[in-house]
Amino acid sequence: MNPATLASEAIARCQRLTRFSEDANGLRRTFLSSPTRDCHAEITSWLKAAGAEVSVDDAGNLRGFYPGAHSRAPRLLIGSHLDTVPNAGAYDGILGVVLGVALLESLEGRKLPFGIEVLGFSEEEGVRFGVPFIGSRALVGRLDAELLNVRDLNGISVRMAIENFGLNPTEIPNAAIKNDVLAYLEFHIEQGPVLETLGQPLGVVEAIVGQTRLEIRFIGQANHAGTTPMNLRHDALAAAAEWIVEVERIGQGEAGLVATVGQIEAVPGASNVIASEARVTLDIRHKSDDVRYRATDLLIGRAEEIAERRGLLLRKSRLMSQPAVAMDPFLTDQIERAIRSTNSLPHRMPSGAGHDAMILAEKVPAAMVLLRSPGGISHDPAESVNPQDVACALECGMHLLEQLAGSPEFLTRTCRA
Amino acid sequence: MNPATLASEAIARCQRLTRFSEDANGLRRTFLSSPTRDCHAEITSWLKAAGAEVSVDDAGNLRGFYPGAHSRAPRLLIGSHLDTVPNAGAYDGILGVVLGVALLESLEGRKLPFGIEVLGFSEEEGVRFGVPFIGSRALVGRLDAELLNVRDLNGISVRMAIENFGLNPTEIPNAAIKNDVLAYLEFHIEQGPVLETLGQPLGVVEAIVGQTRLEIRFIGQANHAGTTPMNLRHDALAAAAEWIVEVERIGQGEAGLVATVGQIEAVPGASNVIASEARVTLDIRHKSDDVRYRATDLLIGRAEEIAERRGLLLRKSRLMSQPAVAMDPFLTDQIERAIRSTNSLPHRMPSGAGHDAMILAEKVPAAMVLLRSPGGISHDPAESVNPQDVACALECGMHLLEQLAGSPEFLTRTCRA
Repeated sequence: MNPATLASEAIARCQRLTRFSEDANGLRRTFLSSPTRDCHAEITSWLKAAGAEVSVDDAGNLRGFYPGAHSRAPRLLIGSHLDTVPNAGAYDGILGVVLGVALLESLEGRKLPFGIEVLGFSEEEGVRFGVPFIGSRALVGRLDAELLNVRDLNGISVRMAIENFGLNPTEIPNAAIKNDVLAYLEFHIEQGPVLETLGQPLGVVEAIVGQTRLEIRFIGQANHAGTTPMNLRHDALAAAAEWIVEVERIGQGEAGLVATVGQIEAVPGASNVIASEARVTLDIRHKSDDVRYRATDLLIGRAEEIAERRGLLLRKSRLMSQPAVAMDPFLTDQIERAIRSTNSLPHRMPSGAGHDAMILAEKVPAAMVLLRSPGGISHDPAESVNPQDVACALECGMHLLEQLAGSPEFLTRTCRA
Repeated sequence: MNPATLASEAIARCQRLTRFSEDANGLRRTFLSSPTRDCHAEITSWLKAAGAEVSVDDAGNLRGFYPGAHSRAPRLLIGSHLDTVPNAGAYDGILGVVLGVALLESLEGRKLPFGIEVLGFSEEEGVRFGVPFIGSRALVGRLDAELLNVRDLNGISVRMAIENFGLNPTEIPNAAIKNDVLAYLEFHIEQGPVLETLGQPLGVVEAIVGQTRLEIRFIGQANHAGTTPMNLRHDALAAAAEWIVEVERIGQGEAGLVATVGQIEAVPGASNVIASEARVTLDIRHKSDDVRYRATDLLIGRAEEIAERRGLLLRKSRLMSQPAVAMDPFLTDQIERAIRSTNSLPHRMPSGAGHDAMILAEKVPAAMVLLRSPGGISHDPAESVNPQDVACALECGMHLLEQLAGSPEFLTRTCRA
């Protein structure tokens, strides 16, 4: 089968899977919700037809194993996630699973020196429990008791959700990968505008960026907007605004850095009252942790200066600090080579979003291929892919399988699992 | 009675009137709420004891008339409002009425060439119906059918509220002032920090500032905070922040101008999503309408530049534009003279807040005396006054009455009513 045919079938499959939704209008498929079962059934039928043995592990991950040329062959993992955000598009996560299926199909029964396990992770988005990566954590042994006890808005814990789906939480340790795993490969839509701006179909991820999330509160003095002269104010919102301008300026000042204030609240929030308090969030990411730490410190310093000059108090809390995760250099080089074989130019880039590959990288060499996102749009029904880009991704994947199958260096790698 | 004694009684009376509240904890007394009746009864007893004839007009204003030396003597109005905001202080509005009573008492029955009508307006804050000045509007013939039909959150119209209080809306035209009115005088707490900063007890209002309220919406593009490079963003919140900094800068650049952004909303308002829309309000005030118009135009121009440079759309709507209202120069001079007689320095200043005097000025010469607000605090239970300042205000009022009683220029003024 040629890549274009496989690609158009892959797109059709992603579209078809949108039927399996918790919402009548729009796609929402959260962790082990009942549409997950139908979604699994549908993908299982494709996997079996491609020659894979299919199971669902006790963390709810769909796993299709396509055996290697001999019974003790190691395995390559290819996957992404099957859960979605509310009002989702058809491709985020799902496409990576469907492309894994298509790559099995492209082999047409031919066996490689390694088996291929296609993974459809049960949870990546963090919607239902406010904690992401539940599925992939099970593979690295981090779906622990603490996480099992987290409850959703209806008071259902992760453990209960697993039981309600007919799975056995005590068997979760068996979902962990063994030392026969050579690598993890994930295809994913970019969810950003970079590849489109460059006019390139595919990107190779060098690292998944590290991320810091802060909450900053400027605390001033509420006052009457009419009777308080400008020079006698302690305006918390004006301070926050000055700082947001700095966030943007410092974000722009360093290549690859992104710094965002997406949330703001002014208290009391009346048009004729000077704000006594302004609460803002900062989301800052870079592939280098050092760069991220330095920029974060710089911005905290600027907030302190602004608050002090204006006679305000400053409160800051660090909501998250997650290190950058490098992708495997050998695999990254191999993907670059495979992309060149499709007559495209590979673009090395960080992934600004977190992905299952970030979790798998704790135990196995991991790599990611990003597909151009038209309009940079994701997490929206308007999320789309170009059919040619999907074909290019598949062609890249097919070249990559051949390269790896012929690479003694790859086949003799050892796994940390 | 000396001013200090009268002042301490006035303060005690303001405190006593806080009992008449809709809320068990904290003072709230909105238009014709049932505590208004008790408040009226209390003040009526003081007015009667001081020699005034008391009535409640059909707009719910309490009116105490202390006759002049002869039956056809013209009258001087002294008043302020008896309604409050929620969780109010004891003095905003109330103090001006209580000082009117104290000035009658200071006469100890002596008659002047003019009568004095003490007014306790039923509504100034705009809390119950979202429309301020309901009481004083009746005096200038502007409590019209449209306003009578405005409804509160319980669906009760102004008209129904008046009827429920036992008053007759069809008689409201009789509440309008006649052409025997010489002037309107209002004492009010400053509600700002200016007098305290200057170390002065009293201010003379030159004008009540004009005010423009705008809503500005910057409309950009929501995007992923991790995957969208800084140079490919259309961040509505960053645009709004840049503009808020300009609002403050332009506000600081012109003496007497105040420009405030007190409300902000970012959409979708998630820490990891670049804001697609930011909505902010602008409150801008100055005693000169020209200055205000110029500054407003300048700020709208800056918003347009910011939006255009960033590839955003701009939507603006003017929520309010209210011209500045000059106080009567003759009365202002007389008040200045009266303040000097108390051995204080008079400070001429605009009032940054709206007051009943602004409405009365449509028909009669109006003037205002502001009392220093400790900490600039108002609309808060911590609102307070210095007893010496209240004594000074009373002494100023007593001097003023003498001055006016001896001023042929004042006594022969004609009223526009």
